[in-house]
Amino acid sequence: MPRDGSATRIRILDAAERLVIDSGYAATSIDQVIAAAGSSKGSFFHHFSSKADLAEQLVRRYAEADVGVLQEGLDVVAGIDDPRARLLAFMAHFEDHADEVMGSQSSCLYVAVLTERQLVGSDTAVPILGAVRAWRQAVADLLRGALGDSDHDVDALADHLFVTFEGAFILCRATGDPGHMRRQLSAVRVLYEALTSQSRSE
Amino acid sequence: MPRDGSATRIRILDAAERLVIDSGYAATSIDQVIAAAGSSKGSFFHHFSSKADLAEQLVRRYAEADVGVLQEGLDVVAGIDDPRARLLAFMAHFEDHADEVMGSQSSCLYVAVLTERQLVGSDTAVPILGAVRAWRQAVADLLRGALGDSDHDVDALADHLFVTFEGAFILCRATGDPGHMRRQLSAVRVLYEALTSQSRSE
Repeated sequence: MPRDGSATRIRILDAAERLVIDSGYAATSIDQVIAAAGSSKGSFFHHFSSKADLAEQLVRRYAEADVGVLQEGLDVVAGIDDPRARLLAFMAHFEDHADEVMGSQSSCLYVAVLTERQLVGSDTAVPILGAVRAWRQAVADLLRGALGDSDHDVDALADHLFVTFEGAFILCRATGDPGHMRRQLSAVRVLYEALTSQSRSE
Repeated sequence: MPRDGSATRIRILDAAERLVIDSGYAATSIDQVIAAAGSSKGSFFHHFSSKADLAEQLVRRYAEADVGVLQEGLDVVAGIDDPRARLLAFMAHFEDHADEVMGSQSSCLYVAVLTERQLVGSDTAVPILGAVRAWRQAVADLLRGALGDSDHDVDALADHLFVTFEGAFILCRATGDPGHMRRQLSAVRVLYEALTSQSRSE
C-alpha cells in the first residue's frame, strides 16, 4: 500500500460505489461502507470529511471513468474514414461491451445520485453534467459527419445515446434481465443506421 | 370526504408520490409523508400497515396510471388506417404532452423505486414489470404494422420507448432542463420515422 493510503481510499470508493449503485445513496450508511471496504472509521475520515464528501469524490471518479469509456470508443473508430461507417462502428463497440458493463455493475451511479433531491443541483452532480456534455458533443460530431446538412435536432439525437444507457439500466432493473443493455444499444444502432441511410438517399 | 376515508388515502398517496419522486424512497420518512399530507399517524396507519405497504400501493397506482396514459395514446390514434401514420401520430401524442408531464412531476416513480435494492425484486416492483410489458406489446404491434415483415428485434425497438421515457427523466434531472423530455420523444419519433420509411423502400 502506498504511504499516502491511496489504496485504502480506492478500496473505500469501490465499496461505496457498489453499495450506492445497488441500494441508493440515502440507504447507504458510512458504517456499511467501512464494513464492506474492511476499513475503519479512522481511515474513512482520513480520506473523506463526510458522507457528502464521499459522494462528491465518488461521482467525480465515476464521471471521469465514463468520459474515459467514451474516449475509448472514439479511439477505436478514429481510423475509419467513412463518417457513417465510423458512427455505426462506434455504436457496435458499446454493444460489444454491454454484457461486460452489466456484469460489473447492476445500474448506473448517475441514476442513484440523481434520484436524491439533496444531491441534485449540488456540486456533487456537476461532473454528471460534464459527462453528459462530453457524450453529446462527441456523438453529435459523429452524427453530423454521417448526416451531412440536415434539419434534425442533432444535439437531441446525440443526447439520445446517454438517455439510452440510463433508460436501459432502469429496464434491466425492472425486468431483472441485464441482456436488455445490449439489445437497447443495438436498437439505437439500427435506428441511427436508418436515419443516416435515409439522409444519404434524399 | 367519503366515510371510508378514501380522500385521506388519496391525499397521503399524492404526498408520498411527490416526496419519493423528489427525494428517493429511503430518504422519505412516514413522518414527512404525514406532514406533507396534513394527516395524522392514526390516519396513516388506518390506510397503510407500514412504509413498505405504502410503497406497494404507491407503485400499483402509478403503474395503473401509466398504463392508462398508454391506452389514451392508443385511443387517440385508433382511427388512423395507415399503420405508419398511426405509429407516428402515437409518438407525436406523447411529444405534445411531454411538457405537461414534466410540469406535474420532476422524475419517474419507477426510477426512485428501482434505485433501491430493498424494493427491486420485491412484490412492490411487480406492477412496474406489468407496465413495461403493456408498453412493449402495444408499441411492438404499432411497429410491426409499420415495418411489415422485418428481421428487426421489434420487442427491443418497442422497449426503446419505455427506455426513452426513463432515460429522459434522468437527463432532465442531470441538466435541470425539463425540455429534454419533449426533445427526446421527438428524437425517437424521427428515428422510428426513418426506420419505417427505410423498410418501405426496401
